Amino acid sequence: MAKDFSTRAENYSKWYNDIVQRADLAENSAVRGCMVIKPYGYAIWEAMQATLDKMFKDTGHSNAYFPIFIPKSFFSKEADHVEGFAKECAVVTHYRLKNDPDGKGIVVDEDAKLDEELIIRPTSETIIWDTYRNWIQSYRDLPILVNQWANVVRWEMRTRMFLRTAEFLWQEGHTAHATKDEALEETHRMLDVYANFAENFMAIPVLKGVKSANERFAGALDTYCIEALMQDGKALQAGTSHFLGQNFAKAFDVKFASKEGKLEHVWATSWGVSTRLIGALIMAHSDDNGLVLPPKLAPVQVVIIPIYKNDEQYQLVCENGEQIKKSLQEKGVRVKFDNRDTHKPGWKFNEYEFKGVPLRIALGPRDVENNTVELARRDTLEKSVLNQNDIVNKVMHMLESIQDNLYQKALSFRESKTFQADSWQEFNTLLDEQGGFIHAHWDGTSETEQKIKELTKATIRCIPLNNKREQGKCILTGKPSTERVVFARAY
Amino acid sequence: MAKDFSTRAENYSKWYNDIVQRADLAENSAVRGCMVIKPYGYAIWEAMQATLDKMFKDTGHSNAYFPIFIPKSFFSKEADHVEGFAKECAVVTHYRLKNDPDGKGIVVDEDAKLDEELIIRPTSETIIWDTYRNWIQSYRDLPILVNQWANVVRWEMRTRMFLRTAEFLWQEGHTAHATKDEALEETHRMLDVYANFAENFMAIPVLKGVKSANERFAGALDTYCIEALMQDGKALQAGTSHFLGQNFAKAFDVKFASKEGKLEHVWATSWGVSTRLIGALIMAHSDDNGLVLPPKLAPVQVVIIPIYKNDEQYQLVCENGEQIKKSLQEKGVRVKFDNRDTHKPGWKFNEYEFKGVPLRIALGPRDVENNTVELARRDTLEKSVLNQNDIVNKVMHMLESIQDNLYQKALSFRESKTFQADSWQEFNTLLDEQGGFIHAHWDGTSETEQKIKELTKATIRCIPLNNKREQGKCILTGKPSTERVVFARAY
Repeated sequence: MAKDFSTRAENYSKWYNDIVQRADLAENSAVRGCMVIKPYGYAIWEAMQATLDKMFKDTGHSNAYFPIFIPKSFFSKEADHVEGFAKECAVVTHYRLKNDPDGKGIVVDEDAKLDEELIIRPTSETIIWDTYRNWIQSYRDLPILVNQWANVVRWEMRTRMFLRTAEFLWQEGHTAHATKDEALEETHRMLDVYANFAENFMAIPVLKGVKSANERFAGALDTYCIEALMQDGKALQAGTSHFLGQNFAKAFDVKFASKEGKLEHVWATSWGVSTRLIGALIMAHSDDNGLVLPPKLAPVQVVIIPIYKNDEQYQLVCENGEQIKKSLQEKGVRVKFDNRDTHKPGWKFNEYEFKGVPLRIALGPRDVENNTVELARRDTLEKSVLNQNDIVNKVMHMLESIQDNLYQKALSFRESKTFQADSWQEFNTLLDEQGGFIHAHWDGTSETEQKIKELTKATIRCIPLNNKREQGKCILTGKPSTERVVFARAY
Repeated sequence: MAKDFSTRAENYSKWYNDIVQRADLAENSAVRGCMVIKPYGYAIWEAMQATLDKMFKDTGHSNAYFPIFIPKSFFSKEADHVEGFAKECAVVTHYRLKNDPDGKGIVVDEDAKLDEELIIRPTSETIIWDTYRNWIQSYRDLPILVNQWANVVRWEMRTRMFLRTAEFLWQEGHTAHATKDEALEETHRMLDVYANFAENFMAIPVLKGVKSANERFAGALDTYCIEALMQDGKALQAGTSHFLGQNFAKAFDVKFASKEGKLEHVWATSWGVSTRLIGALIMAHSDDNGLVLPPKLAPVQVVIIPIYKNDEQYQLVCENGEQIKKSLQEKGVRVKFDNRDTHKPGWKFNEYEFKGVPLRIALGPRDVENNTVELARRDTLEKSVLNQNDIVNKVMHMLESIQDNLYQKALSFRESKTFQADSWQEFNTLLDEQGGFIHAHWDGTSETEQKIKELTKATIRCIPLNNKREQGKCILTGKPSTERVVFARAY
C-alpha cells in the first residue's frame, strides 16, 4: 500500500501516532490531554475488559462502583499517598453556572462554591477505604475482593494517546484481608493474572518483578509489576499490583475483630491496568504496514472480501462468502464479510491490513468454481490458496498459529534486547546503541538510582522475582551488590 | 423473617431505602449526593448492561468513549441545551493542589487556574458533535451509530439512591444521519429497544409516548419515552429517545456532501437509560419481605441451601447439592450453592429471600434419600417438593414462570391504576386517592400544563403513540382538545 505514513526506522514516535489515527483507534479531543477512543479502538478495550473481567471473577472478585469525587481532605490522610497523587489533578470548586450578567454566555456562579473542594479521582484508595470502614467489623466480613472499572484523571503535562492521557479508563482492584500473608498472596495472584493476560492474550512476554522504593506506588509497602519491551527498545510498565500493608486501614481507621476477639487493622492490596495496554499492544506487534493485532483481542479476526467483475459474479461469491461467514461464526470466530460495493477490493485489502485484522479471505469466481479461498496472514503477510473443505478448522488453526507466532516474535525480540552490563561505560553504550533490558548491579540506594536516572534517563524497571543472587559491584558507585536489577529507558 | 424494616403501607419511601440498604445494593458515600453501588447492586447493573449492549450491537451500534470534560463554551452553542444543562453541574476550575504554606494539609494552587472552566459532562451531545464534525464529510460517512457507557454528573439538590444522584452511570447513544426520516426511524427503533428491554427483561410494562414541550430534552425537537408505574402509583420515566433534528449539527457546524453534491446539515438522535432503572426494578416488584428480582436480571437465579445436623449429613447433602449446581450451570443458570457452615439455614433463607433470589432449593438428608428437593419461589413464596429427575428443566421452566408472573402482576397493577378523568374534580380525587396513570384532555398549551403541575404536582408523562383521536374538553380550562394525554405524579 501507499507509504504515506512513517516507518518505525524513520520516526518511531510518528509511526505510533500515524497508526493510532489511521487505524481509527483514537484521536485528540477539544479538551487538552483527553482523547476520544473511536469505535475500533474501543472494541479492543472491550475485548481486553471481557477477558480480564472473567479472570477477576474466576479468582473470586466482584465489581462495584465508587464516586468519581474525592473530598480534598481524604488525600491528606495517608502521608505518602498525598505526595504522590494529590498534586496534578482536576479540582472541582463550584457546582453551578449562571448566565453572564454582561450577556456573554455563561459564567461560574460564585455563590455556588463548595465548602470543600472535590478531586476527580486519580486512583480510589482513599474513597474506597473510607467506605470499607463501614463494611468491616469482624473477620467474617473478610476478605473483601472488589474491582472497579472506571475513568480516572491525572493532569499530565505531556500526553500521548493511550500511553499517557489526562483522563484514561482502567480497572482498579481493592481488596481487604485479615492477615498479611493473605494480602501478599492476593498481590501475587493478581500479578500472575496480569502476566497471564499479557502473555497469553496480548502475546507480549513480560518480566515479573518488584519496584525499587523510587518507583513504588505512593502509599504501598511494595509494588509488583509486569514490564514489557517495545520495538524501539523502551520498556513499558503494563500492570501493577500493590501490597499496601495496613497503611490505608490505619489512615481510615479500618479495624476488624479477629477470631480471637482482638481488634486489628485490616491488610490491603490494590492492582490495576488501563487503556495504556492498547498502546503496548500497538507498539509490541505492529509493523511498517500498520497495526498488527493478536487474534485473541482482535475485534475482527477474519475478514472476507469478495472479488467480482459483474453482478452475476457478485451474487456467486456473496453466496459462498455468506456460507463461510456463517460457518465461522458458529464456531465463535469474529468474522466480517465486507460485501460493500462502494469500495474496491484493493481498497479493502489495504484497509484491513492497516487495521491489523489477523486473517483475510479473498474469494473470487474462480475460487467458488474450484472450491478454494485465498488466505492472507497479517503477521507474516504470507498468502496461500486453500481448499474450502474443513475451512473452519484451518482458519481456527491459523488464528492460533498467528497468536503463537506474535508471542514468539516478541519473545525473540526481547531476548535479542536483553543484556548484562558490568561497567558504567558498557551500560551507557548499551543504552544508546541497543536499548532494551539491561541487567546490572546497583548499590541498592535511592540516591544512586536517582543519579543514574538523571545521567541516562534509564530507571530500574524491576527487581525480578526469584532473582539470582550474585556478587557484583554497582555500575555507578562500585559499591557491593548481591543481585542484578533490570534497567531500561521507559514509557 | 423479622419485620425490622418498613412495609410499603407504613412508609413507602422508607421501605425503598431499607431495601436498597439491607439488600446490599447501594449506600450513600462521603460525597454529597453520590452513592456507592455495592457488588450485589452492581451485578444487577452488569446484567442490564450485558443485555442492552447486545441489543445495541444487534441494531448496528458500536461503543466509543468521549472525554468526561466539556469546555464551558460548548454549552452556549445550542440555545435550548444551555438552559437545560449548563446550570447545576460540577465545574473544574483548577488542575493542581499544593501543600498549604501554613502546614494545614493541601490547598488549591491558584497559579493552576484553567483558562476556560471544564464542566463534568451532564450529557455528551456537545463534545460528541464537536467530534463528529471531523468524522463527517460525505454521505458515505453516514450513518454514525455510536453508544457510550459512562458516568455523568448533575448537581441535584435532592437525591435518592438510584433514582436521582449527583453522579450516575448510564449509556448514551448518539447517532448521525443523512436524512430526517432515517433519524426519526432510529429514534423509534431505540424507543422500541428500551420498551422491549423493560417488558421482557425487567418484567415492567411501559407506555410508549412522546413528551409535551415542557418535558422535552433541552435541545431536542421531540423526546420519546417509556413510562412505568411504581407500586405507590407514581410514574417513573424509564428511558428516553430524542429526535434532535439538525440542532446540534447547526450549533457545531456539522455538514455533509449529499449524493447530489449538496452541502447539508446532519440529522441527529440521542437516547439513554441509567442506573435509575435499578430503582424502577426495585419499586416495581419488591414486597414487604424485601427485594424481588426478575430471573432474567437476577445476579443469582437459584440458590441451593443444604440442611444438615452433623458432618455425615453435611457430606451427603453437599455432594448432592454440587451435582445439582453443576447440572444447572451447564444449562447457563446462574446458581449459587451456599454451603458455608458459618451461617444457619434459617439465616440463609432470610438472606436470599430479602435479596430477591427468584428460586431457592433446600436440600436435606431426607431429600437426598427420597431423591427430592424443596423448591421455594420468591415471587409467590410458594413451596413445593419435587423429584430430582429432570430437575434442570423443572427449574428453568419455573424461572420462566416467575419472569412471566412478575410481568403479569405488574401489568394487572397498572391496569388497576389506569383511569380516565373528565373533570377537574374527578382528576384531583383520582390523583389523591388512587394515583396511577390518568388519561385526560388537555388544551395543548404549556401554560395549562404548568398550572396543572403547580396545583397538583402531576405532569404529563406522555402523549401515547398511536393515540386515539377523541373530542373533549381540557380538564383545567375547558378548552377543546382532540386527544387524551397521560398525567401522573412522577419520580
